[in-house]
This record gives sequence, C-alpha cells and structure tokens, in this order.
Amino acid sequence: MKQIGVIGSAYCGEELYNTAYKVGQLLAKKRYILINGGLGGVMEASAKGARDAGGFVIGVIPFASRKGANRYCNAVIATNMGHARNMIIVHSSDAIIAIGGGYGTISEMAIALKEGKKVVAISPEIRLPRLIAVDTPEKAVEMVE
Amino acid sequence: MKQIGVIGSAYCGEELYNTAYKVGQLLAKKRYILINGGLGGVMEASAKGARDAGGFVIGVIPFASRKGANRYCNAVIATNMGHARNMIIVHSSDAIIAIGGGYGTISEMAIALKEGKKVVAISPEIRLPRLIAVDTPEKAVEMVE
Amino acid sequence: MKQIGVIGSAYCGEELYNTAYKVGQLLAKKRYILINGGLGGVMEASAKGARDAGGFVIGVIPFASRKGANRYCNAVIATNMGHARNMIIVHSSDAIIAIGGGYGTISEMAIALKEGKKVVAISPEIRLPRLIAVDTPEKAVEMVE
Amino acid sequence: MKQIGVIGSAYCGEELYNTAYKVGQLLAKKRYILINGGLGGVMEASAKGARDAGGFVIGVIPFASRKGANRYCNAVIATNMGHARNMIIVHSSDAIIAIGGGYGTISEMAIALKEGKKVVAISPEIRLPRLIAVDTPEKAVEMVE
Repeated sequence: MKQIGVIGSAYCGEELYNTAYKVGQLLAKKRYILINGGLGGVMEASAKGARDAGGFVIGVIPFASRKGANRYCNAVIATNMGHARNMIIVHSSDAIIAIGGGYGTISEMAIALKEGKKVVAISPEIRLPRLIAVDTPEKAVEMVE
Repeated sequence: MKQIGVIGSAYCGEELYNTAYKVGQLLAKKRYILINGGLGGVMEASAKGARDAGGFVIGVIPFASRKGANRYCNAVIATNMGHARNMIIVHSSDAIIAIGGGYGTISEMAIALKEGKKVVAISPEIRLPRLIAVDTPEKAVEMVE
Repeated sequence: MKQIGVIGSAYCGEELYNTAYKVGQLLAKKRYILINGGLGGVMEASAKGARDAGGFVIGVIPFASRKGANRYCNAVIATNMGHARNMIIVHSSDAIIAIGGGYGTISEMAIALKEGKKVVAISPEIRLPRLIAVDTPEKAVEMVE
Repeated sequence: MKQIGVIGSAYCGEELYNTAYKVGQLLAKKRYILINGGLGGVMEASAKGARDAGGFVIGVIPFASRKGANRYCNAVIATNMGHARNMIIVHSSDAIIAIGGGYGTISEMAIALKEGKKVVAISPEIRLPRLIAVDTPEKAVEMVE
C-alpha cells in the first residue's frame, strides 16, 4: 500500500489547518497510509482529515513514549530520536506533501529531495531545486498518485 | 489501540516459525497492532499470522527503503538506522513478546526491561531479571493483555 | 573545550575546498575541536586544514564502519544512521559554519537554527531566517568565537 | 588511531569504579582513544582514569545537549537518541571492554557481538556466546590490543 508523508509545522493558523485536513481526507480516500510527525498543527490536521475519511495514520514522534502523539493517529512510532525522526518519515514515504512549515519542514524536504523522492509543497516558504509547488490540496494529492 | 512488539531472529526453524505465527494470530484476534522488525524468520511468521487473522502489522526495518520488508507488513517504517531500530520497536510497544532469538533479541529485551516494559519470552535462551518466561503463544498473549 | 561543526557538500570545487581548508586551520589555531561529517569535499578539506594546524577533528559518519571516513579525522564516530547523523553533528556543536553545500547542508542548517544555534554560512545557496552570511573564513571563525 | 569502547552502568560501587579507572588509565597509556557513554559510574571512572594518564576521551551521550556529560570527556557527541547511542558506541569502537553493568550494558554487548566485535568483560553478570570474560583491567586491555 502506498505511504505518503505529510509534513509541516506543529503550530499553524486556521487556513493551513484546513488545508492539511483536506490533504489528509483526500489521501485517505485514495486508501493511502498517511505518515506524519504525530504532533499538533499540520500533523494533527492531516491526521484528523484522514481519520474522518476512514484512513490509516501513523504518527512518527520524536519522544520516547506514545503518549505525546495527537489522538488521531491509528498507530504511533515512538522514536526517542528528536529531529532524527524526520529522516525516518522521509525514508518511510513514497512521496511527501509539505504544507507551510518552518525549519523542521525544510530539513525534511531537503533530505527527501536528496533521496530522490517527489516532494510537493503547498505554500512553501522556501524554493529548493526539484521542489514542486502547488496551490491546492487536490493538486498536491494528484501529484503524488 | 494497543501496540505489541514481537521480537525474534530473522532466521528460525519450523517450530519457532509456527509459534510466532500463532502469536501473531492471537494478537490480531485481540485487535492489537503488531509491531516488529519487518524481516524474515520470527518477524515474518508473526506478521503472517496476524495478517491471516485480519490484524494490522507495522514492520520497523533497519534499511533506508521499504523494499527490504517482508510482504506481510501492512505498513513499513524504514528507519535507515540498523540496530538502533530495535530501540524504536521497544519505545513503540506497550509490551514485548520475545520468541527464541539471538543477540538482537537480547538487546531489545534488555532495553525494554530497562524502560520498565513488560517482556514475555517464549523459549528464551537467556535469563534476565524481570523477564517473564512462558511456554505457549496463548500464555504469552494472555500476559500482555 | 569548544566544539565547532563545519558542514558542507561531500563534493566541491577547488575554491570551496580552499575555503574549507582555511576554516579548519583557523579553528585549530583557536584550539577548538572540529566536528564534521567525516567524508570528502568540504568535510575533508576542513579536516585537513585543522590537522595541518595541529587541531583535533571528529568525523561523524553515516556508515556502520570507521573505514568510510577521510584520513584526516583524529577520531571517527560511526553512527550507521545515514542522514540522521546530521542531527548529531548539530547537537554536538556549539556553533556551525556552513560552506557552500547542497540538500544535506540545508537540512543541517535548518535543524541547527531550530535548535537556536548560531549558524554562519560562507557562500550560502539559500537564505534562512537568522542565518548569518559572511564572505571569508576569517569572518566565519570570528563569528563563532 | 585505535578506538576502544568502555561500557558499564551509570551507577557503580567503589570496586567497579576503581576497576574502570584503571582500565581508562591503561588504555590511555597505549594511546588509544576511549569512547564511552559520557555519564556517571563506570563511564566517569574510565574517563577520569584516561584523562589522568593523558588520554583522549569521547563521551557519546543520550541527550540533546553537551551539558549532560561528565567533566572528564575531552569531546562530547550529543546524540539526542537515548539508548540508540549504545549502537553508535559499538560501531565506533574497534573492540569493547565491559565492566559490570546492567541492562544497557547487556544491550551493547549483544549488538557488539552480533557485529562481530571483540567484547571483553570484567565481572560480567551474564554469559553470552563469544563474550570473553577476564578478571583484571590488565588482562582486559591486553585482550583488546
């Protein structure tokens, strides 16, 4: 089954939250497994969207205990590895959708591109070679099919 | 949902394979998510058992690519971290069932016990303080309920 | 003792090689320990510069065996963790000097900035908030004092 | 230069402390780099012994910040990876000397043996295939030459 990573900041405004929710929903409808960082903001929103559409969400969190994850994850991988968990999300994903995002998201996009993975970004704050910028959840999900 | 780790060697004889298969089956019937190392032997057997009983299996593999996992995993976490992925299995599991096993299994049991997790072992080759030894899959699964 | 991380691509042209060599030399004269990724290009050049000036270099490499490191490292930390070793370099460094660099360097800079570390970049290909851009090895080393 | 890992519990009695101190001293006299976990007990004692004999000690710690290391380390690698740092110590060491030790030490010995490394143990609490048990610091250091 396809595994798509959704990355973005743990804190976000309403607009990005709604965007991430929609991305999660669309991925679930395709029956893709959604992999994300398991925390708040974009991660929570995409997980919630996927769950509401009957999808399966795996949160790969930086902490030692599953308790730190948001409640929309079906399963939680507790890495106890801080930012290094970003690399695990990259390796575990067939393609990545980035939504907004700060430094952590940049680090994930950079490693994903280095690994030759397709990275589709909605509203990226940064331009990177081979990064595919789109402006809607629909286009983002279409690009990772 | 409960997440139970099943650990054991990547190579095993028929008896341990059948034991691991049965453990996977029983965990799936309880609707627990099975977490394991995603490779062959005990990992493959428990995954197959869980799948045959309608369960969900996450293989946490040492490699950079999902391709190295056995085909019974529903989802694959590709860590690219070698033996360090053993620690991730420990942190991600509410309790651990060990089946036979060599050095890698010993390392996982030791860290799980250090972390205060319940570790139930079928046919352990080693005695460790607080390790619970049992002799059937049924008893092992009962102990992690 | 101060530990300064020097990051940059494993492949680089002569100009960046000379720049990295000079950075290594200047750090060694300050008696700072140089931490880098232990491979070629900017990593090798900065290590060579530091060694030639009597410094101490620790290469934190992505591989399982020390053998993959360049020959200018005094000590090698073999992580067997691929790109995740970038995070270890960040956590182990009081400040970071980035020299040129591609995706891997971007990921390290992003995480270092997220961690609140000072990141000084010579000839950066990218602009990031709080990234300090300078144009000579002397200024870079002065900034991390 | 040879890198020898010294592993053991973060808490230990006076006898093991003295043993670890002596091991550190002897390794330093051979001009081997000592790699350990950078915390208290056996790790602190071996680091102190090495430093008192003019050696070089690298503490590979589980935390995100160098501040958690004991004060006898010449350099600190801050992994932010908890128990997974045990694997890094194993990969970075040409051979391992274990002194007493609990669960964490067992996990390191097991992985080191799995990786085919020589593991010499003073007063081991556990027997593992290929583990070399000795009873003095002198014999331990002789075995890793």
